[in-house]
Amino acid sequence: MTDHDISFEVKFVHRLRQTDDVSQGDFSVLEDVLLGEQSTPPKVLFCLDSNLEDGEFANQLITRLQTSERLRLVREPMIIPGGESCKNSEHTLRDLLAAINSHDLDRRSYIVVAGGGAVLDAVGFAAAIAHRGIRLIRLPSTTLAQADSGVGVKNAINYFDKKNWIGTFAVPWAVFNDTAILRTLPDRDFRSGLTEAVKVALLKDAAFFDFLRKSASKLRRRAADVSKEAIARSCQLHLDHITAGGDPFEALEARPLDFGHWSAHRMEPMTNYALRHGEAVGIGVALDTLYSARKFGFPQPLAHAVCQTLVDLGTPLWCDQLNSPDNVLQGLEEFRQHLGGRLTVTMLKNPGEAINVHEIDIEVMKSCIGELHDIAERENA
Amino acid sequence: MTDHDISFEVKFVHRLRQTDDVSQGDFSVLEDVLLGEQSTPPKVLFCLDSNLEDGEFANQLITRLQTSERLRLVREPMIIPGGESCKNSEHTLRDLLAAINSHDLDRRSYIVVAGGGAVLDAVGFAAAIAHRGIRLIRLPSTTLAQADSGVGVKNAINYFDKKNWIGTFAVPWAVFNDTAILRTLPDRDFRSGLTEAVKVALLKDAAFFDFLRKSASKLRRRAADVSKEAIARSCQLHLDHITAGGDPFEALEARPLDFGHWSAHRMEPMTNYALRHGEAVGIGVALDTLYSARKFGFPQPLAHAVCQTLVDLGTPLWCDQLNSPDNVLQGLEEFRQHLGGRLTVTMLKNPGEAINVHEIDIEVMKSCIGELHDIAERENA
Repeated sequence: MTDHDISFEVKFVHRLRQTDDVSQGDFSVLEDVLLGEQSTPPKVLFCLDSNLEDGEFANQLITRLQTSERLRLVREPMIIPGGESCKNSEHTLRDLLAAINSHDLDRRSYIVVAGGGAVLDAVGFAAAIAHRGIRLIRLPSTTLAQADSGVGVKNAINYFDKKNWIGTFAVPWAVFNDTAILRTLPDRDFRSGLTEAVKVALLKDAAFFDFLRKSASKLRRRAADVSKEAIARSCQLHLDHITAGGDPFEALEARPLDFGHWSAHRMEPMTNYALRHGEAVGIGVALDTLYSARKFGFPQPLAHAVCQTLVDLGTPLWCDQLNSPDNVLQGLEEFRQHLGGRLTVTMLKNPGEAINVHEIDIEVMKSCIGELHDIAERENA
Repeated sequence: MTDHDISFEVKFVHRLRQTDDVSQGDFSVLEDVLLGEQSTPPKVLFCLDSNLEDGEFANQLITRLQTSERLRLVREPMIIPGGESCKNSEHTLRDLLAAINSHDLDRRSYIVVAGGGAVLDAVGFAAAIAHRGIRLIRLPSTTLAQADSGVGVKNAINYFDKKNWIGTFAVPWAVFNDTAILRTLPDRDFRSGLTEAVKVALLKDAAFFDFLRKSASKLRRRAADVSKEAIARSCQLHLDHITAGGDPFEALEARPLDFGHWSAHRMEPMTNYALRHGEAVGIGVALDTLYSARKFGFPQPLAHAVCQTLVDLGTPLWCDQLNSPDNVLQGLEEFRQHLGGRLTVTMLKNPGEAINVHEIDIEVMKSCIGELHDIAERENA
């Protein structure tokens, strides 16, 4: 018998572009990325979130794609139903695979997808498994996706009524964080996506949390300068985690970017996704920050500042499902199961200083739910 | 607009175990790998190629898995239809995903699969996409899979009637190349799998080709010592390519391990898979070696030695589909398409010295098909 363990490394390149308007003046940046090392115009399949359909941004971008001589658009845009429904539908996956096949896309072709996180996830999964990987270019259309998941290396669809049950880790060819694409976003979505920025600031960058705290009211009003900076810094922290954090494909037991997410992932389906992911994350972050204050010395005044920041941002601190705490607390076991092994939840000692814990004191957590209820009531009063 | 290209590396570990009999004396080696870093017995789903069902090896292994206190077998073995049919069936994929879900396997659980290359591929794909990756332990049951694909990082199912159209790159948790499991293999399969050893020897290791040439008749008779050495060296060359070759996930344009495969991949479906993959590879290797002798200075006597080695091994040099050379030559375009970009085919200058070429002289290739026909006729006379 011979033993033979070989450690090896696989090289990847992550390309991030921050553009003002890729549907107009910055279109050539997209063309440059698409042409890349290739000597002939590459094939491109364009997928569009139905929420962007017939908007000015989408129409301009489509015209540019159709008339560009530096790429070959293989068909009219594929419209993908926006929101979680596209991830619940095998139909969408089949349509995408059929289009990739019928237009003979190969591993040097591109799928360009403009949309929210759910559409990026579903299209990304199809791109990842066809020919073991068609090149994927994401144009996230929400603050949530630009600040967080859009720059990440995951894709997924839902299966067995479970969120993200099927998926892969796959590094996108490029991500365009474009300012113009966000203009179409409703206020509610614009604001709620920024809770992921609050999350990553609390995990990794105290100065950034301070910036968000002071800018929250401006962010609520969508002020251009602070919005751009908040997204760019959040995105960069996420990207640093992936490219320099040592575990982008989550082989280890911790999921350090998922602070506040055990309850968020549970509350979303409980509300039948009426609660936005970003809103659920905001509530989950507030709850785990209060818990961190009780158990791990996170400064109490700062815990209240976190809640106040979310209020100033215009995102909720409460949803009625928290009136059934035992039900919400089942999220801990679901959270453990997805990654496997023992429970590992990220908590805070200080802003920018996270720790992993393997046990949650249920009574204290319930008490924190009560505390959050009181804070939310006070805010509404 | 900001440009931001970040190169980064992802760490993987590949575990190879060469065992005499993992169903008996070496079972603890499997237990050790399964327990790994975990403090409690991990969940294990066992999948078995139907070709091994009710055999002595399989029954012994199942008994050991069922009675081991160091792991938790979640259910009776899942029997997967052997051969290409399991890759053509969405039913098999669904069954596998349903079992993973109903037994709550997670990313710290294992799927152990014993079988031929097709079963390893289908089970591997299910394991790769469930929860973005359940740990996979392969026990290849054919010389082909032990010498070649079983140690690789690909998985796939067929889709749109196209071989391996859907799949991912995923590093298996461990691969067990076991001697006992091969005893059940019919002679035809035992021999034909060794064509992949001939292939990798010609690509990378002239001394190994010399060994195979001299041992071919013994290999045909399944002599234990040379068989074990041939498989181990072939496997090692494949593993070196993956772990040290710099492009395990095939981001570049060449597929250097696919020497002889453009025609092999075409002939297999033309025979409706009556021709074994290893047999098709043997014919394809012979053909491209003859072409290499005509075009790239590969020594003519050695080209005939390659043909003689395959004859001595007991694998065919010819299949009737080659009587339609234009049809077989369509394999070049299909080969180009899967990877995309320009055509890149690996050819030989000398044993152990490969080159990539981007053009095939069709008339010369047809003439080589004729030459191969004559050699095969002579051998049969």
